[in-house]
Amino acid sequence: MTTPLVAHGQLTGLYDLSEIGRDAQRGGYSRHLWDPADLEMREWFIERARRIGLDVEQDRNGNLWAWWGTPGTNAVAVGSHLDSVPGGGAYDGPLGVVSALEAVARLKASGITPTRPVVVVAFAEEEGSRFGLACLGSRLMTGEVDPAYARQLTDRNGISLERAAQAAGVNPAHFGPDPQSLGRIALFIELHVEQGRGLIDLDSPLAMASSILAHGRWRLSINGQGNHAGTTGMEHRRDPVLAAARAVIAVNDTARTHAGTRATVGRLEVVPGGTNVIASQVNAWIDARGETDASTRSLVEEIRANVTSALRLTGCDASITEESWNGTVHFDSETTGSLAEAIAGVPLLPTGAGHDAGILAGHVPSAMLFVRNPTGISHSPEEFAEVDDCVAGVQALQAMLRSVL
Amino acid sequence: MTTPLVAHGQLTGLYDLSEIGRDAQRGGYSRHLWDPADLEMREWFIERARRIGLDVEQDRNGNLWAWWGTPGTNAVAVGSHLDSVPGGGAYDGPLGVVSALEAVARLKASGITPTRPVVVVAFAEEEGSRFGLACLGSRLMTGEVDPAYARQLTDRNGISLERAAQAAGVNPAHFGPDPQSLGRIALFIELHVEQGRGLIDLDSPLAMASSILAHGRWRLSINGQGNHAGTTGMEHRRDPVLAAARAVIAVNDTARTHAGTRATVGRLEVVPGGTNVIASQVNAWIDARGETDASTRSLVEEIRANVTSALRLTGCDASITEESWNGTVHFDSETTGSLAEAIAGVPLLPTGAGHDAGILAGHVPSAMLFVRNPTGISHSPEEFAEVDDCVAGVQALQAMLRSVL
Repeated sequence: MTTPLVAHGQLTGLYDLSEIGRDAQRGGYSRHLWDPADLEMREWFIERARRIGLDVEQDRNGNLWAWWGTPGTNAVAVGSHLDSVPGGGAYDGPLGVVSALEAVARLKASGITPTRPVVVVAFAEEEGSRFGLACLGSRLMTGEVDPAYARQLTDRNGISLERAAQAAGVNPAHFGPDPQSLGRIALFIELHVEQGRGLIDLDSPLAMASSILAHGRWRLSINGQGNHAGTTGMEHRRDPVLAAARAVIAVNDTARTHAGTRATVGRLEVVPGGTNVIASQVNAWIDARGETDASTRSLVEEIRANVTSALRLTGCDASITEESWNGTVHFDSETTGSLAEAIAGVPLLPTGAGHDAGILAGHVPSAMLFVRNPTGISHSPEEFAEVDDCVAGVQALQAMLRSVL
Repeated sequence: MTTPLVAHGQLTGLYDLSEIGRDAQRGGYSRHLWDPADLEMREWFIERARRIGLDVEQDRNGNLWAWWGTPGTNAVAVGSHLDSVPGGGAYDGPLGVVSALEAVARLKASGITPTRPVVVVAFAEEEGSRFGLACLGSRLMTGEVDPAYARQLTDRNGISLERAAQAAGVNPAHFGPDPQSLGRIALFIELHVEQGRGLIDLDSPLAMASSILAHGRWRLSINGQGNHAGTTGMEHRRDPVLAAARAVIAVNDTARTHAGTRATVGRLEVVPGGTNVIASQVNAWIDARGETDASTRSLVEEIRANVTSALRLTGCDASITEESWNGTVHFDSETTGSLAEAIAGVPLLPTGAGHDAGILAGHVPSAMLFVRNPTGISHSPEEFAEVDDCVAGVQALQAMLRSVL
């Protein structure tokens, strides 16, 4: 992993954050909602925003807002998230927040008096890496998840979101739809590092987002019979690890036969997980995505059928439960088009990654700006962005904001 | 899981231990070397032994010894271990220690003056569930593992055995061969719950062990390319979870084609383990066992070849490293035969499970006594033993001890 470089004293925020939440075991960064690293990221946000002269508030769902001007309606919101996947890169999330703060700082320094409020936002738990539900903060705010359901979600240590919120000084009883916060926003812009090879192929440092693939998460639970690895003959086993292996192959094979779809098992828990123990249970998470809602739904139904069939002779029971679902998002072409006019010559790009802007898009005009990732790799320590491209991103954000202020 | 019952005030030790180290997530018990549960088990051992009037000492490798009579040569050792697999049963280990203490207590109470020292032993980390090496305490004592190698073994949190020992007040610089402790023992007897269906099939509450299958552990490490689950097309992936799935099936298929062998993947770690992340690495542990050293070695070589072949088209690299190896143990028939005379009518039974007695057998005459497990299931909360069978085990141990005192 490369520590983000700072050119010409710009994007110093990335440098400030470069030691927070490093993951010595996985490489990269692990920053999950309200863990020590996330709390440190939040402190940095508050401190940095105050230094620029913004007023920081935390909403009822744990999202942070830094206001330029009096908080109020018709505001332009710009930002992203501070949390990461386990062992993630330095840019996914923080680049958008750091760039937003930097663009606002420059506009302020240039002496502009905005005609409407501007607010930098850092949404909570965008990756869903602690409680399993991506875009948790923006979903709660927009009412796209039931707060009672969210409160009982647990992390890998069995700690509920409710308890974690209390420990972080947030009252979980106040979780839920926040029409006041949402109603103030008239436009949301999210800058984000690109997560595939799209901008490499287009040979461009920046692009505006056209759409987000439909995507969701499903938990596959397989129950077998725990037993001793030494004393139990091969023919007397109901081994859920073997069943999970067949399921993983079925998931993969199914996605390969559906053009334009993707399906991944990236998290897998073996219970109890002893070397000399035939497991009793395996939980595996399936991430599935497709160009349209219909193609993604049909992919998941076929995965369900093929997994069931693959497990038929294993003696194990399985269930597949939907944990989240996001239909395809088409960003409003008028909003995107008029912002793009402020930064001429920027291509349009669809993405396979979910974002808070995808959640917001259902409620307020929203747009996304991608910054090129020369490795084409993301959710990994190898994720990268050149300083010059990051600077171009800040300048574009500045120009877009100026065009609407 | 059933809490062990206590009949006629006997085997109260199992009841004393029944709340220590319960695993709310996995079910059953998790008691691993020097974790809070293991420390509590050890305190109980010391306390219970002292109440019987035994002198307790801890050797340089963390094994506990409770002496009846002056510690010295020509001693009869009897015992087992206190640690468990993750989410293990109530009997595997503790039954042997509790029964040994109970048998000694009864012999003492009956007024016998032994002609040689008797010592109850609790070996450290028999399951190898924390540091990956089964029979750690007995291996260190007998010189069957290099103490420098052992010191650098790490647990799942990256804590080394060296650091864990220091934290528990044990000096890891003193780890290693202990001819003084070993030289005092002229006979070792280990009572253990049976871990398969052997005694159900024989319709007998007890059996003496004839042999232990050859067995070992191998770590399979698979490296792929970590990436974003949404933005990376199926054809651009080098996914180690998919590779691991093919490897698990290859391991299983290979064992099924070798008569009398067993191979299991019961522990599997996905790095980084995010739902929306194509993993970068998978570590899987292969437990392999066979009737002879040669058949087990040949099983592992064939697994190695078949895994390599199964991974050929996955784009992932893999390595298989031996973490432990135990050749077949044939318990000394003279020792076993003469002890069996004290408890007439007990059948002989081979076992697929490793034990400290298997390590000791290479150095001092050793024997094992199995107690029936009516579920045939072990390394699981469903492991069980009827009180009457446990009482029969204590009585048999008492008779065997009396025959050699």
